[in-house]
Amino acid sequence: MNTRLYNAHIITMQQPVETIKGEIWIEDDRISYVGEAKSDEQIAASGIKFDCEKDCNGNVLMPSFKDAHTHSAMTGMRSYADDMPLWDWLSTKIFPLEAKLGAEDMYEFARLAVLEYLATGVTAVFDMYMNPAETARACNEMGIRYVGCCDINKFGPELSEVERRFETLNRNDGFCSYMIGFHAEYTCTKELLASISDIAAKYSSPVFTHNSETRKEVDECIERHGCTPTQLFESLDMFRNGGGGYHCVYLSDEDIEIFKKHDLFVVTNPGSNTKLASGIAPLSRYLKEGIRVAIGTDGPSSNNSLDMFREMFLTTGLAKLHDMDAAAVVPAEVLKMATVNGSLCMNLNDCDVLASGKKADIIMIDMHQPNMQPVNNIPVNIVYSGSRANVKMTMCNGKILYEDGEYKCGVDPERIYENANTLMAKYRD
Amino acid sequence: MNTRLYNAHIITMQQPVETIKGEIWIEDDRISYVGEAKSDEQIAASGIKFDCEKDCNGNVLMPSFKDAHTHSAMTGMRSYADDMPLWDWLSTKIFPLEAKLGAEDMYEFARLAVLEYLATGVTAVFDMYMNPAETARACNEMGIRYVGCCDINKFGPELSEVERRFETLNRNDGFCSYMIGFHAEYTCTKELLASISDIAAKYSSPVFTHNSETRKEVDECIERHGCTPTQLFESLDMFRNGGGGYHCVYLSDEDIEIFKKHDLFVVTNPGSNTKLASGIAPLSRYLKEGIRVAIGTDGPSSNNSLDMFREMFLTTGLAKLHDMDAAAVVPAEVLKMATVNGSLCMNLNDCDVLASGKKADIIMIDMHQPNMQPVNNIPVNIVYSGSRANVKMTMCNGKILYEDGEYKCGVDPERIYENANTLMAKYRD
Repeated sequence: MNTRLYNAHIITMQQPVETIKGEIWIEDDRISYVGEAKSDEQIAASGIKFDCEKDCNGNVLMPSFKDAHTHSAMTGMRSYADDMPLWDWLSTKIFPLEAKLGAEDMYEFARLAVLEYLATGVTAVFDMYMNPAETARACNEMGIRYVGCCDINKFGPELSEVERRFETLNRNDGFCSYMIGFHAEYTCTKELLASISDIAAKYSSPVFTHNSETRKEVDECIERHGCTPTQLFESLDMFRNGGGGYHCVYLSDEDIEIFKKHDLFVVTNPGSNTKLASGIAPLSRYLKEGIRVAIGTDGPSSNNSLDMFREMFLTTGLAKLHDMDAAAVVPAEVLKMATVNGSLCMNLNDCDVLASGKKADIIMIDMHQPNMQPVNNIPVNIVYSGSRANVKMTMCNGKILYEDGEYKCGVDPERIYENANTLMAKYRD
Repeated sequence: MNTRLYNAHIITMQQPVETIKGEIWIEDDRISYVGEAKSDEQIAASGIKFDCEKDCNGNVLMPSFKDAHTHSAMTGMRSYADDMPLWDWLSTKIFPLEAKLGAEDMYEFARLAVLEYLATGVTAVFDMYMNPAETARACNEMGIRYVGCCDINKFGPELSEVERRFETLNRNDGFCSYMIGFHAEYTCTKELLASISDIAAKYSSPVFTHNSETRKEVDECIERHGCTPTQLFESLDMFRNGGGGYHCVYLSDEDIEIFKKHDLFVVTNPGSNTKLASGIAPLSRYLKEGIRVAIGTDGPSSNNSLDMFREMFLTTGLAKLHDMDAAAVVPAEVLKMATVNGSLCMNLNDCDVLASGKKADIIMIDMHQPNMQPVNNIPVNIVYSGSRANVKMTMCNGKILYEDGEYKCGVDPERIYENANTLMAKYRD
């Protein structure tokens, strides 16, 4: 399947962030050309036969978004329990309901999440949850990339199961991979953390975890272990192969040095941090220190949506409020976080930018909507004015999976909604 | 034109906020029935002939949103100048460009704004800007309600012009009205403020203004006048007929007492306050004190969008961060601000809720999208998970103006985009 997308504004996300007018050629799963418009003669001379030629009508083509921290299968619990602080919410509402869920339920809820990812332009998710094989199955069947992160904690799973997952889910096909990780310091013993560090060493895996999401988490870690979560992990040599932290709202100066030493990623989750009143991550500081920042939605029951446009506005907006500086974290930086850095932190190194040879993970942004007009500055429009409603097309690996509000990924959305409602009717209090 | 909207979930916004299953009948411009489903026999017995009967397919009907503070005609300057503090942004970029704009330009830019209002479910705007008659014309031609607020400041217009506007724009047709107001303390002399207070008294008008948007504004007022802006206005008897303040990020305890004394509205603008790094308004405190809060987008060049869903999430989210309390400002309260309180602060007292006899200003929220599933709690879904993409239909005064992404208000959106771009190409640096 060869596709030509012409008459577009293109943001390749190669640095610096610029917009070019032109077209993109896709041969099977990869981009073979990005650049200025080609003439009919040039196209004929190329020898490529296009199965599909699409007039983009001046709309924007850019790399798809990468959701760098999520719990896809938590869609079922969207709007099930809200307006509670993190720990109360987890312990009194989420953990008890999760205990009732089986593997097939996870699959159903993950399918619902994938519908939402496609509608917001996400083609790869860094997912931490139980039954990772089920979420991977849902993602891959519907055409997007799954990168799992182990969620081990003192309640499970067994270490042997972690190894089994690592070995079976790393498929080297660009669609399914798995990294070592753990839920959080506050749900793991020090001994368990040491074992996880050993497994990460054995498999040369980066390690990701929820880190310093709340002030309480950091304070209680200091009480328990005499140091911050980041320092505890470092003392166990957790990051010898890199990795990073989800949330990272409360990193200390020393923590920041550890992040720099191992070139760790910060994955920011502003929607969740806002709704759960966790706080505002000091992103300007991280950027100034050279730490790479990616963006995640967190799970749909803490956010409560999987909308990368809301996350992008919050990423810059909260940074501005944190610093009381309207110039903090500019749109070009936010776009880089939501695309390039997301890819790199998930170790998806060939779908980060639009360039010849890269995987064709591309979205089209509809500029023919009032919120994107006039066109004074396209990247600024996308970050400050953009909405999920502007996602006109989502392509992963050269295949169009969503276009003009219709799903082209072989599923019936209504059936997925019905299944999710049936399950929640059974499990809800 | 009589319309029947059946098979719907209905949030009437009568208190307490609840969802009922049923239908709505609209006869011409007003609602004649809201309640449980009616049988064919009951419909026949009513004697009403419906011109249009629409199966809502389980989607939500609720009162349309009211944008309680905006500068519609600033759409042209969307993404024209960003990442600057309020005063620099105004004085170096916005004021110089505004000086080039004529009345017809305002009309064109306002038309672009109305397209955006309809797509986000807004049917009434409380607009403060130059050439109010042009914005009113754009709104009314396209079918939505305009409530203007005078923007007088030391650079213009003349007091006589303010009176002329008040007399000509108060049309008593529910579509065009005007209130006395002024830009802000920092752009008015005390003498001018006294004159405005006199005019408000003459016309028995409420008075609205930008109030305590930034810390700098409050500090400089105290330096100039020895008191806060609110206290200065009170000393001039500005609020004898009520009114309120836009932004109100930094009200003091004494200011809050003045707001309570005159039953003034706070119109919160969280998107703008975030993007301009102005700060977070203490909304929980205002609610606890019994102050009525409405929501505005502010202008599209400071926000940079006119998206009531983003504003609703920010309204609750920023309150949670301000209080560091995940239970702050719950969804039912936010919906009330965005609908009922918006209406009341604009003195539109018959389009606040869905009830027999009220004006038919109604929106349909599409629940058949993944971000609204499963349906654990509809009001919570709307505020925490909802998106502009969920606005399936916008009706004002009984007329459908926007449906399934198409405009039914007699304009060609592409022409409006083209005009806005042509104008900005001329005026941009």
